[in-house]
Amino acid sequence: MSSPSQIAELQDAANRMRVSSIEQTSKANSGHPTSSVSAAEIMSTLFFAEMRYDVQHPKHVAADRFVLSKGHACPILYAAWEEAGLLTREQVLTLRAANSDLEGHPTPRLNFIDVATGSLGQGLSCAAGLAYVGKHVDKASYRVYCVLGDGETAEGGVWECAAFSSYYQLDNLVAIVDCNRLGQSQHTQLGHDVETYAKRFAAFGWHTITLDGHNIEQLLHAYAEAKTVKGKPTMIIAKTIKGKGIVGVEDLDGNHGKPVPVEKANPIREKLHSQVRHNWQIPKPIYDTPDVNLNVGSTTLSSPPNYKQTDKVATRQAYGTALVKLADNNKRVLALDGDMSNSTFSCNLKKKYPEQFVECFIAEQNMVGVGIGAGCRARTIPFVSTFAAFLGRAADHIRMSAVSFANIKYVGSHCGVSIGEDGPSQMALEDLAQFRCIPDGVVLYPTDAVSTERAVELAANRQGIVYIRLGRPALGIVYDNNETFQIGKSKVVKESPNDKAVLVGAGVTLYECLKAHDKLAAEGIQTTVIDVFSVKPIDVETLTKHAQRVGGRVVTVEDHYEAGGIGEAVAGALSNLPNVRVHSLHVKELPRSGTPDGLLDLYKISANHIVSAVKNFN
Amino acid sequence: MSSPSQIAELQDAANRMRVSSIEQTSKANSGHPTSSVSAAEIMSTLFFAEMRYDVQHPKHVAADRFVLSKGHACPILYAAWEEAGLLTREQVLTLRAANSDLEGHPTPRLNFIDVATGSLGQGLSCAAGLAYVGKHVDKASYRVYCVLGDGETAEGGVWECAAFSSYYQLDNLVAIVDCNRLGQSQHTQLGHDVETYAKRFAAFGWHTITLDGHNIEQLLHAYAEAKTVKGKPTMIIAKTIKGKGIVGVEDLDGNHGKPVPVEKANPIREKLHSQVRHNWQIPKPIYDTPDVNLNVGSTTLSSPPNYKQTDKVATRQAYGTALVKLADNNKRVLALDGDMSNSTFSCNLKKKYPEQFVECFIAEQNMVGVGIGAGCRARTIPFVSTFAAFLGRAADHIRMSAVSFANIKYVGSHCGVSIGEDGPSQMALEDLAQFRCIPDGVVLYPTDAVSTERAVELAANRQGIVYIRLGRPALGIVYDNNETFQIGKSKVVKESPNDKAVLVGAGVTLYECLKAHDKLAAEGIQTTVIDVFSVKPIDVETLTKHAQRVGGRVVTVEDHYEAGGIGEAVAGALSNLPNVRVHSLHVKELPRSGTPDGLLDLYKISANHIVSAVKNFN
Repeated sequence: MSSPSQIAELQDAANRMRVSSIEQTSKANSGHPTSSVSAAEIMSTLFFAEMRYDVQHPKHVAADRFVLSKGHACPILYAAWEEAGLLTREQVLTLRAANSDLEGHPTPRLNFIDVATGSLGQGLSCAAGLAYVGKHVDKASYRVYCVLGDGETAEGGVWECAAFSSYYQLDNLVAIVDCNRLGQSQHTQLGHDVETYAKRFAAFGWHTITLDGHNIEQLLHAYAEAKTVKGKPTMIIAKTIKGKGIVGVEDLDGNHGKPVPVEKANPIREKLHSQVRHNWQIPKPIYDTPDVNLNVGSTTLSSPPNYKQTDKVATRQAYGTALVKLADNNKRVLALDGDMSNSTFSCNLKKKYPEQFVECFIAEQNMVGVGIGAGCRARTIPFVSTFAAFLGRAADHIRMSAVSFANIKYVGSHCGVSIGEDGPSQMALEDLAQFRCIPDGVVLYPTDAVSTERAVELAANRQGIVYIRLGRPALGIVYDNNETFQIGKSKVVKESPNDKAVLVGAGVTLYECLKAHDKLAAEGIQTTVIDVFSVKPIDVETLTKHAQRVGGRVVTVEDHYEAGGIGEAVAGALSNLPNVRVHSLHVKELPRSGTPDGLLDLYKISANHIVSAVKNFN
Repeated sequence: MSSPSQIAELQDAANRMRVSSIEQTSKANSGHPTSSVSAAEIMSTLFFAEMRYDVQHPKHVAADRFVLSKGHACPILYAAWEEAGLLTREQVLTLRAANSDLEGHPTPRLNFIDVATGSLGQGLSCAAGLAYVGKHVDKASYRVYCVLGDGETAEGGVWECAAFSSYYQLDNLVAIVDCNRLGQSQHTQLGHDVETYAKRFAAFGWHTITLDGHNIEQLLHAYAEAKTVKGKPTMIIAKTIKGKGIVGVEDLDGNHGKPVPVEKANPIREKLHSQVRHNWQIPKPIYDTPDVNLNVGSTTLSSPPNYKQTDKVATRQAYGTALVKLADNNKRVLALDGDMSNSTFSCNLKKKYPEQFVECFIAEQNMVGVGIGAGCRARTIPFVSTFAAFLGRAADHIRMSAVSFANIKYVGSHCGVSIGEDGPSQMALEDLAQFRCIPDGVVLYPTDAVSTERAVELAANRQGIVYIRLGRPALGIVYDNNETFQIGKSKVVKESPNDKAVLVGAGVTLYECLKAHDKLAAEGIQTTVIDVFSVKPIDVETLTKHAQRVGGRVVTVEDHYEAGGIGEAVAGALSNLPNVRVHSLHVKELPRSGTPDGLLDLYKISANHIVSAVKNFN
């Protein structure tokens, strides 16, 4: 199958990539040469004897995909693209320098990277997202390859993905564990016991192959075998040597993340048959990926909100309604859920368009990773939903989605103490802080069903990360069906010339603000009521205008802890203004089970407490 | 081994517990009866034929431990303690009511609960923490039991723990999967395929047993078998029926989390040989657990900080030094790390006292769960460290540690852009928000080595959750070796009568504040410099006093995003004061690789930007 000359060329390429990796990290005086060189043969065989791609268009929708889950080994990836002819030696030698896109861990600032890696154990889920879309949505020929470190298989997210990938029969997915035995601080749990790795992945439903990761022929044979496997993903456990080829460093502890003197490349260079890159004939993609249009404006509600002013509708219900209306118009809207679809109402989509719903089971990390992968290269618009509290399970994946510049929509239901009886383990009281920390992220917190439907539509048409916070209780309709909403804009719900304070709420607390407004009005105290709607970006202009108009008295109320919530966002937004004071009502202690209304009062975010706050504002 | 009468009594107990579960949830009109009754025989056999405990002292240090990982099934747990005689029927019928400690998911407000559950897939790690301490620290006879749902085995944390528990040979740990086939929204990935579950856990190094989870005799036999297994934990996969015994509901989808009419208990009640609880002779614990003293003041540095004013020491280095000094004095100080010990410097403890170090490999969720379990019942003081960014991987576990009222110390190194070349995937820029959201949590952000050692000591002597934020760069010594520090107190580092602004920093930005102070002073502008030290609780008094003293001009500077960071904490703390304005300098966009100093300047948190901010403050 493979000729001796092909094997020699691939071995030569592997060694040239080793030399490049050593030179890159030596020049940068930081980075991970030993973790790079253990994967040299894995990478040379993948890039120059297995994958189909167009060097000039690395992200072509028809090209095979590659994810380096062990992102710290990126020098070998940069070296592969150098060998392929996309990058020059001068370029790769800018590794880790300021202004270079060849960062310490790969990010999509580079045109050949789909997803950022560097937080270990995440790349496989992103690859599974790419593979899921390839097989089940695009139904195209492209295949997906992922290289993992052995240490990162300790991450549970890898096993969430292992179960997911076999459940969805992702036979277009091939993963390779670069099993080099050594972690950062010591040996891994399993060392070189490749058979136990194989047993584990086999038990999780994968086709498994163990081999010598420095043996070109075995690697080529394994990739060929993987192509024959139907209905299962393939996991190749490649036994390798950390630091392979670097004299005095090979297979020794204490050499993680340490550059070596550039002279260490000389013995490898001396083995080379050719010092210059080979003129590879890389097979072109099979161009059978369908065109899709996910441009802004392509994804609108099939019909406007349609509620009576007397309806009681939870925002989570309106989310389910809106999702279906988007899917009516766009077959690339996907909903992913973690076995909560009948609570988040993403089940509405599952019922009407089952092919646009991905059940991810109780595995939020993998769900988010799959969502990140699914959104790549404008293939789909993924909406990822579960209880907002459990999105915290995937906090690091969500953080990394920002590093990936991902196009993904997070939807968290059951926020705050207003969920009631289920108790604190189910109450999200930190999700606003979590999502406000996403650079360039948008955080929408719609109050009623009308604004929820529009928030979902806004999210679909915004490139990037949007979080939508949803509540459990069925509450009233605040807005007319034809009301319009914008990212970055609040709604002024009550306003009169003699207002003495601004009440700022969102979701369940907006209703409390409205009750407080009426109680205060009955006592002759007029107040402005602002529905935040867009928690990030926050509407500094509207807040400033009304804060100043009422004499600087602002009361914020939120079903959330203090840190990073609405109160701090508003205080921060107004902190440069003299004579504006912000009094924040928020949940101050660990809550307990109870009735929704009882808990709002117990934790001092109910109308009564708003009334007191206004009256005590001197 | 088991007599027919014993079996009949245990079956009767299981059915009484079923009746109680139905009554509890029917009365509450919420909760999870179907998930409770599937585990009835598992629970009756554990509580009345297997575990050793003292009903009147459920948390005795010698008693066997029980963790209900599927926390939503707590009615069956409350029913077990009712059957044991600890709770009355009247008490269990307060399920989910306001003011009742019998919450919707179990928390340590109850005297028989070690750790809160309800966020699925976490209980096993906590149980492993209890078992690790039992076997390797206490070296005592007590055993640890954990009941999981089948759906939650989709969570990666379960597999992190599976690997951990076999690696550390926790043969005092017995877990049972209540494999009832149905999740919340649909069937689980594996349904009733108990053999595949067994294959997976066996591949992860567990002794496995599959059985009929409603068969008392098989359960008793399995527990006996588990006691004979040495060097491995045991996993029992119990095939059960969701809703078992509830006519018209058994094994049917769509009945998760739904109470049933109380009459549904009648057919079960009719089967009972006795309506009243049995007078169980529960075997007493084996009293061989050593006494330990972890009272406040018991855990002090063996020697005070000892630095020269010219030293350059990273706070992470000082952390390693302090950890060893605490361990000199207290053999119950534990350090857990996720293969980062040579970066966080917890390796210092590993070197000097290897028995006080637990390598958790790259599996942060399990690490935190183990830490929560290890800290229970005042057995140890666990310090859990890794890169601060990767503590986000365990955000939900950390959130749940607050619900557990855990005594645990989190230590995050490599915060912010000042790590430099490794790039954004390794930079924690949201950790202050994350940890400020812990109710009653403490957040310390020491600037130099002296304050770091004292922060570590303060953490050890504080019951509850403390987070310590550490930096990568080696920077100067700010404080005298005999300086004292307090939780809730900032340090005023520079102060003069004619100050025109307050500069507020911590960690790397405190040094930038000091540089800015000198530059401004050279231009005749005097400033106060405050080292936050205690980010939570924040020192409102000191901030207020100095803000007012300088005419209300406050500049905060942090190596963190805006949301929930120091700027918002300070703005929030001062938001009730008229005429105080806070200008916040923080990281505003997704950073990239570069040099530490270069990045501080690029992201506008360097001395130069502080100088500009002060000059532009009108």
